[in-house]
Amino acid sequence: MNNTQAQVETEIGPWWQRDDLSYKSNQLFFAGQNLNDICKQVGTPTFVYSAQRVRRNIERLHHALSGTGLDYDIYYAMKANRNPSILTHLCLSGLVGIDACSPQEVLHAMSCGFRPQNISFTGTSVSKDDWQFLFRQPNLKINIDSLSALKHFGEHAPGQRVGIRINPALGVGYSDNALLQYSGRDVTKFGIYQEQLDEALAIAAFYDVNIHRVHFHTGCGYLNQQLPVWSDILEAALPFIESIEDVREVNLGGGLGVPHTASDQPLDLEQWQQIIRQHFGGKGLRMAIEPGDYVLKDAGLILLETTYVEQKRDKCFVGVNGGFNLAPEPSFYSMPCEPAPCALSGNAPITATIAGNINESLDVWARDVSLPALDEGDYLALLNAGGYAAAMSSNHCMRGEYHEIVIP
Amino acid sequence: MNNTQAQVETEIGPWWQRDDLSYKSNQLFFAGQNLNDICKQVGTPTFVYSAQRVRRNIERLHHALSGTGLDYDIYYAMKANRNPSILTHLCLSGLVGIDACSPQEVLHAMSCGFRPQNISFTGTSVSKDDWQFLFRQPNLKINIDSLSALKHFGEHAPGQRVGIRINPALGVGYSDNALLQYSGRDVTKFGIYQEQLDEALAIAAFYDVNIHRVHFHTGCGYLNQQLPVWSDILEAALPFIESIEDVREVNLGGGLGVPHTASDQPLDLEQWQQIIRQHFGGKGLRMAIEPGDYVLKDAGLILLETTYVEQKRDKCFVGVNGGFNLAPEPSFYSMPCEPAPCALSGNAPITATIAGNINESLDVWARDVSLPALDEGDYLALLNAGGYAAAMSSNHCMRGEYHEIVIP
Repeated sequence: MNNTQAQVETEIGPWWQRDDLSYKSNQLFFAGQNLNDICKQVGTPTFVYSAQRVRRNIERLHHALSGTGLDYDIYYAMKANRNPSILTHLCLSGLVGIDACSPQEVLHAMSCGFRPQNISFTGTSVSKDDWQFLFRQPNLKINIDSLSALKHFGEHAPGQRVGIRINPALGVGYSDNALLQYSGRDVTKFGIYQEQLDEALAIAAFYDVNIHRVHFHTGCGYLNQQLPVWSDILEAALPFIESIEDVREVNLGGGLGVPHTASDQPLDLEQWQQIIRQHFGGKGLRMAIEPGDYVLKDAGLILLETTYVEQKRDKCFVGVNGGFNLAPEPSFYSMPCEPAPCALSGNAPITATIAGNINESLDVWARDVSLPALDEGDYLALLNAGGYAAAMSSNHCMRGEYHEIVIP
Repeated sequence: MNNTQAQVETEIGPWWQRDDLSYKSNQLFFAGQNLNDICKQVGTPTFVYSAQRVRRNIERLHHALSGTGLDYDIYYAMKANRNPSILTHLCLSGLVGIDACSPQEVLHAMSCGFRPQNISFTGTSVSKDDWQFLFRQPNLKINIDSLSALKHFGEHAPGQRVGIRINPALGVGYSDNALLQYSGRDVTKFGIYQEQLDEALAIAAFYDVNIHRVHFHTGCGYLNQQLPVWSDILEAALPFIESIEDVREVNLGGGLGVPHTASDQPLDLEQWQQIIRQHFGGKGLRMAIEPGDYVLKDAGLILLETTYVEQKRDKCFVGVNGGFNLAPEPSFYSMPCEPAPCALSGNAPITATIAGNINESLDVWARDVSLPALDEGDYLALLNAGGYAAAMSSNHCMRGEYHEIVIP
């Protein structure tokens, strides 16, 4: 952002403002709460989540999927955020099931009220111990991502229904980031490739396993620019589906993204549902999706305190009291991080590099971003910290403590 | 590694074998223990650490530093591994103090027997709350990495001794990996730059603070190829030291590396100590170093179980029951990962890609490495997992459980 953009912002507000996230009298409010007050009362680092925003994100998906005229289910990918209060809100809403990827996730979802029949399980490198647990859960919707897992399933659950994860050899991801693509150019561990399908069908036949569902998940964070590729991925999945007689459900995975910068547009769900309808309309198939970030990412932020402001050579460093170990996406996945002061001082904007408190050079939240000048002790919100932040946090340097506040 | 190398290995043993880590009757032993037995008895994932190897690594450093003829201290960088039993071994040895970077690390070191006078604290983005804690610890050796922190120190502790972290604007790291360099090409948050020194001295004079120590740490994992740059870094630090009248100690930081591949040679400590002597001999300065990886990395490994072996296109995937969330360096820092089967089957070698159980495409431990063919249920050790592994682990996907075994 340059100074002209900053000037525009002070007139029309920043790009990310919305009904439940905006400045009033120069104080940043989120879900009706004054964030500066939360910082003072609760301390920092603190994640704040809005259950209402979560619900609205899901309702938007329901609206779009209803437009397809197809039957469907939404499974929330709990790996994005497993906060027990959020999971309880989701369970009580009745709007979603759970996408889990490990036995502990299944147990945690159950501890928040979900039943196995509302949980879709898609694991990778599933161990013997994992299988022992999974076979004890009745009606869990299991998707299998390798031939060896299919054999294992057949040996222990002959005659039962299962899903298979396929690999359509195409990937999609935010900004076409390769780290976020789960299939495509490189051969990945995920799913059964086209040329493995005959063997999969033979294994299924041998064990009398009913391949009821085809699942694929090819990447994270896709927006409108990636929709043509996403359409190609759905097209690439069709030959798999057509080759498997028993398929009644198709799980399109997750990966629906949210805007991270001023130039990102929100995902056009009308166009998205048309792509689904175009590929799967009139086939009598039940659809499923597994959004994680789309549900939680913009429903959460992290609050930090400014520890110092100091010019070093050509950089103005703004230090904060939390580092990449609390939310690793900016450092490890090159995801943009949007800082917003909790109170506007009226200071002129500076170009700042926001640095955390971990002794590693990569511990930088954002480089050369325009911000109203901050002082030591000022509070800063980092937006889009609802997904893949606390859930992936570590206690590196023993800087791993944080609070979580859920606004109902 | 190609097949010829693999063949040589079966004759002379793998490159990493040493007295306390080698195959006997086709079983891998570490610190006198049969790793296959540990897997069966304890389960997996399990980190195994050897306290004797830790001690030997430290003794090697003492031997080298004694050769300089200078007074010196060794502070173990506990951020590499904070296992309480390991820290207790280190405390009882009396061979090292602790390098801590957060109040919680200071407290944890104290909980394992260390006293503040044996703890060197070098934090970054130190918060008001952090300072409140630090000022309560008598004799803690504090190094300050910014002008604003120096002011803060001066305001609260006028007349006292302190160290300053400088930024010599040169970096060093394993394989010249930019992620591991803490100063150099990019302007980093760490330390006081040369052009800030006059202001630092003015602040110190104003508050009557005695700058007793100069500290720098410029990167991680350096080996012999990086020693010429490391020598340049010591040279670049001299003008700082010469400009500060009160300096009596120089802390050279950590970053000493260990071999990760067959082509890496162990750090030549004789050459290393000569570089120290060449720059600092005869100046009446006390030296300090802060090794982390050098002490712990090759004193630990992680044990995992093979969950599947499956060919997908041109890759043979070997799945294991642990992912990058347990030890993030291979995925996030592109550090080589060396797998070693816990038992040799006599099978012909295969070229394998070792994949973890996290639903992310980057969750691959090693690509296209030569290994004796493994079967489901076989146990695998991943070497060099003693540092920056468990200490940085997360519960991502709720796959974060592991055991730790310390062999005394």
